Amino acid sequence: MLTAGVDVGGTKILGVAVDARRAEVVGEPVRLPTPKGSAVLLLDAIEQAVREVESALSPSVAGVDAVGVGLPGLVDRSGTLRMGPHVPGIVNEPFAEPLVRRLGRPVTVDNDATCAVWAESSIGAARGASDVVMVTLGTGIGTGIVAGGRLQRGGHGFAGEAGHMVVDPDGHECACGRRGCWEQYASGNGLSRLARGRRAEEVVAAARAGERDAVEALRRFAWWFALGLANLVALLDPQVVVVGGGVIEAGDVLFDPLRSAYRELVMAGDVRPEVAIVPAALGERANAIGAALLASR
Amino acid sequence: MLTAGVDVGGTKILGVAVDARRAEVVGEPVRLPTPKGSAVLLLDAIEQAVREVESALSPSVAGVDAVGVGLPGLVDRSGTLRMGPHVPGIVNEPFAEPLVRRLGRPVTVDNDATCAVWAESSIGAARGASDVVMVTLGTGIGTGIVAGGRLQRGGHGFAGEAGHMVVDPDGHECACGRRGCWEQYASGNGLSRLARGRRAEEVVAAARAGERDAVEALRRFAWWFALGLANLVALLDPQVVVVGGGVIEAGDVLFDPLRSAYRELVMAGDVRPEVAIVPAALGERANAIGAALLASR
Repeated sequence: MLTAGVDVGGTKILGVAVDARRAEVVGEPVRLPTPKGSAVLLLDAIEQAVREVESALSPSVAGVDAVGVGLPGLVDRSGTLRMGPHVPGIVNEPFAEPLVRRLGRPVTVDNDATCAVWAESSIGAARGASDVVMVTLGTGIGTGIVAGGRLQRGGHGFAGEAGHMVVDPDGHECACGRRGCWEQYASGNGLSRLARGRRAEEVVAAARAGERDAVEALRRFAWWFALGLANLVALLDPQVVVVGGGVIEAGDVLFDPLRSAYRELVMAGDVRPEVAIVPAALGERANAIGAALLASR
Repeated sequence: MLTAGVDVGGTKILGVAVDARRAEVVGEPVRLPTPKGSAVLLLDAIEQAVREVESALSPSVAGVDAVGVGLPGLVDRSGTLRMGPHVPGIVNEPFAEPLVRRLGRPVTVDNDATCAVWAESSIGAARGASDVVMVTLGTGIGTGIVAGGRLQRGGHGFAGEAGHMVVDPDGHECACGRRGCWEQYASGNGLSRLARGRRAEEVVAAARAGERDAVEALRRFAWWFALGLANLVALLDPQVVVVGGGVIEAGDVLFDPLRSAYRELVMAGDVRPEVAIVPAALGERANAIGAALLASR
């Protein structure tokens, strides 16, 4: 079975084709800019991404059998985007049904982080584990959960908003209207704040080059990140935590202090089997691959 | 099928018999004191509780077909108690296997809060819901999770330690060795601290009688409780949150400020379907009933 996966990000749309049985990506990914503020233009772009994915396939293939879409926000079980901070102006818009009409094939629509954890636990860094939490660090934090081998969507499709766990009630204001959300500390923006406004990418590059201030900023960032991971482990008890997002390119200069702070912060660490904290394996294509794999089920 | 459920608490052991098919308790519960500091004495007491549950059954019944046990601590998937703050001195002790040998019947062993959420979602306050979080307030906080209709135990059996989510990194010291765990605020002990050392039961009684300081202490308690619930809802997206423990006897004087603080604190409350926050229905027998129901599966 061949399926297409489309990942809608805040700035770009990424489409891939996946051979679900062989669990591998087929052909080249396609890229489009994300249109702003209009559900109709966004539907057009998703449809176009699917058409382009199909055009890029070998002429011997009839096309994709089903389509999966990952959206950056709260997606309910009917495939409606309730809201998403990175797609402002699109509220309570259905995506699944209109795409079925346009494409004439089954369409599944999920939260992007939900797609990503499915990809990483199916064919990526957490392959073989039954209980997985994936945390993707970008502007904010995206979280996906696999528990008992099953993808967790929650009662309404909204599970996995760990970025909005409050970890410091008197802390920084969050765009969500509250204070002290985890993503105010442990995200690209959080790192930037800890590094006095330097861009996260800069801090990562400087830390890899051994610059003291940058290493120290990453160390403090790792502490906040570990605090939230310890909360997630206390609650969900995964075997593997997968960390995604550009910041993982920091490598050991992030993961060493992260694992060390986590060991210090996790509850009952002395009796608890070790939890593997590992970088994501599928890179920026994880969301799209996961969407395609979900469409093949 | 008739099963026995045994709930081991910090001070007492409670045993019940449950008719799993009819989903109802049969006969009277039995009570024993919890022996301290010895796994062997505790096994003896659990065995005795099962024998007494059987003695109390009608003579027409042969006995129970299986036994479920709820233990207050981290219980791994093999039925070994890794540790539990309310059973000090018992560390890494197997329970399932020795009880099978003693009783000659299948035995399941789980965390007590895991048993409780199974009971409340099978035959109690969350009947019919697929996604449920139960939070039981006692000396600490016990949490159980049902997601997608399935009991969540985590990768090693340790899921549901929400009491040890850190919600205030510079906050009160916790017995677990860290700072600012949720149960330092939203538990019987937390309420007691907010009421300047008065016992939780006293505060609840005084608040029900309309005493201003007590009502105010419950209101502040409700805020901290709601903060953690909002975190759990962001992460797990349940349809129902069941609240257990003696403090629910406060009734509206707790639940009104709790629901109101929750609405203020939950992320994306304006697009999120309402989550029912309801008192537990099965009272102090929830753990034992859940253990019995789990043994019947």
